[in-house]
Amino acid sequence: MKFKINQKDLSKHINIAQKGISSRTTLQILDGILLEAYKGRLRLIGTDLEISIETYVNCEIEEEGAIVVNSKIFGDIVKKLPDAPIYIHVDNNNINIKCENSEFNIIGNSSKEYPDLPLILDHTSFELPNDLFKSAIRQTVFATTQDETRPSLTGVLIEIENKLISFVALDGYRLSLRKLPIESDVQLKIIIPGRALNELNKILEDNEEIMKIAAAPGHVVFNTGDTIVYSRLLEGQFFNYREIIRKDHKTSVTVNKREFQNSLERASLLAKEEKANLVKLNIVNEQILIKSNSEIGNVNEVINADVNGENINIAFNSRYILEGIKIIDSEEIQLNFMGSLNPCIIKPIQDENYIYLVLPVRLAQDDF
Amino acid sequence: MKFKINQKDLSKHINIAQKGISSRTTLQILDGILLEAYKGRLRLIGTDLEISIETYVNCEIEEEGAIVVNSKIFGDIVKKLPDAPIYIHVDNNNINIKCENSEFNIIGNSSKEYPDLPLILDHTSFELPNDLFKSAIRQTVFATTQDETRPSLTGVLIEIENKLISFVALDGYRLSLRKLPIESDVQLKIIIPGRALNELNKILEDNEEIMKIAAAPGHVVFNTGDTIVYSRLLEGQFFNYREIIRKDHKTSVTVNKREFQNSLERASLLAKEEKANLVKLNIVNEQILIKSNSEIGNVNEVINADVNGENINIAFNSRYILEGIKIIDSEEIQLNFMGSLNPCIIKPIQDENYIYLVLPVRLAQDDF
Repeated sequence: MKFKINQKDLSKHINIAQKGISSRTTLQILDGILLEAYKGRLRLIGTDLEISIETYVNCEIEEEGAIVVNSKIFGDIVKKLPDAPIYIHVDNNNINIKCENSEFNIIGNSSKEYPDLPLILDHTSFELPNDLFKSAIRQTVFATTQDETRPSLTGVLIEIENKLISFVALDGYRLSLRKLPIESDVQLKIIIPGRALNELNKILEDNEEIMKIAAAPGHVVFNTGDTIVYSRLLEGQFFNYREIIRKDHKTSVTVNKREFQNSLERASLLAKEEKANLVKLNIVNEQILIKSNSEIGNVNEVINADVNGENINIAFNSRYILEGIKIIDSEEIQLNFMGSLNPCIIKPIQDENYIYLVLPVRLAQDDF
Repeated sequence: MKFKINQKDLSKHINIAQKGISSRTTLQILDGILLEAYKGRLRLIGTDLEISIETYVNCEIEEEGAIVVNSKIFGDIVKKLPDAPIYIHVDNNNINIKCENSEFNIIGNSSKEYPDLPLILDHTSFELPNDLFKSAIRQTVFATTQDETRPSLTGVLIEIENKLISFVALDGYRLSLRKLPIESDVQLKIIIPGRALNELNKILEDNEEIMKIAAAPGHVVFNTGDTIVYSRLLEGQFFNYREIIRKDHKTSVTVNKREFQNSLERASLLAKEEKANLVKLNIVNEQILIKSNSEIGNVNEVINADVNGENINIAFNSRYILEGIKIIDSEEIQLNFMGSLNPCIIKPIQDENYIYLVLPVRLAQDDF
């Protein structure tokens, strides 16, 4: 294999392929990036067998071929080279890298040892703009669980029906649901691992270009043109989330998002972990009173709000309520309550397409 | 104690006082900041008994007094409060903090338990502009040792004689020496702990304002106006560094600093820790050849240079040579050698006031 490539281009695409590689791998070959020079392009692949990232970049090929090179060392070398053409020549697993007055020789592994990409045959496909996909990931993936004993909840459910795509994540304490209209008659229900979506989010540029998504039994493929991300799907049934999103409520509050978030953040300074980050809300007379106390001291916050319906005393883990509020972009948010034992539903004002649901912490009324 | 203070001002000065506090303290009172409202100013002190940082900020005092408050909690609260006046009222160790719609109550400790600042009586003093002092710290403190068994080398020697101030740090592998002319007839020789200089460097603004430095037996005091940094001095004899800085040399090389640094950085990618980050330099025929090899592979770098004197083969720990080159600002540097077993002396071109000296790694000539 022998080719010439621009340093900036190569460095960028190594960086993309590296996102498929897990730092926890125990198989030496999976520390590597597969490089394949073929028909005027260099193909780079990084994988941890769960996710595979394949990316293409133009180069001038003198001799086609393939090699596996340690991703960390190769990436560090290319990043440090000057912004000039790089000449790579592979002979018998020896990789020779020349650029201006620098010359490296490192040992690679045969590409024959590298695992194959999943073969996707029969599939269902749909399209979404990058920016909408990115914001849907951002608004849901944080609510997945890290608890590996509940594997289906470590991923985000993507469900398409009636020209609506829903992204759903939940962990037993809160649920995040993003809906988007979609120009497709596809019916689909798949669970994508959180890690795949996080890496995809880093790779995707925040623009309106269209990404193609193809789902097949066991796998999903995200095609963004130069870069293709393959992920295994999670097996198992997803929690029947629709049941817990009630439409009716006894108290509805509209509040400035920034003010509410700041007050919760201050209140949670004294809400220590050992007490489940407990913050107490008293919703009364056009105000939200937020209280928290611990051995360190106590805090009281008062925020003006538009309150409709019954007064209510309710307590939350401040982390769960804050994480949902933070990712809402609207200036005002609506909080809907159905008593102090039922979940609170949080929505941006004038946007029916995002819902965050958070379970309260049960307290005796005397404790408020 | 009762006073009113601007949120931004208070947050800034808490941040300064916090730099005196060690995260490793085992004495609970030293986790605290001393707050003292007196004569129209709030005085804040943080200390770990080695370093003390005292800083003053204007406030409106209704009742004078003092308290010790946990630095982390108080700092976090004030940082999160809105940019508005903060009202602080201390009654019987209860600290009440009000700002707009927020109210905190936290427990403090009596200021009587807080250690006194060192009392400096008889002292020798001199002055230097902040920016020169900062650059002298930056160019020397990195070369101090972390090895606590050689306490005097964990600090920077400051020596004043004949209207010249010298900053010297060394760790047995390299030496860094910064000289500055000074308008003072003082004769002085003190060793200041590296940590004190690092914290001072963070506090000092990069301007030409004058800082006053006063040295007394056992202590040094840096006075920057609003903020005063006290540090213990290190005891013991400093290494007699003058002996090892030879004036004569057999090979003198002038090279572009950026090119040399980049090449060394690339060469050190393959120079692994277990081999002491070994890089080999062949200085021949107007060129520097840099080589490094390990199990991973090998690298060759070629740089054009202006070489006067004998050719030389010499090896270094890449970390030690790089750290000295990085902090030199000039475009070209001069490397002076006296054979492959003696230290290399590195200087910025046309600046006699900075010297970096680095010991070579001894190799048999066959190993080059």
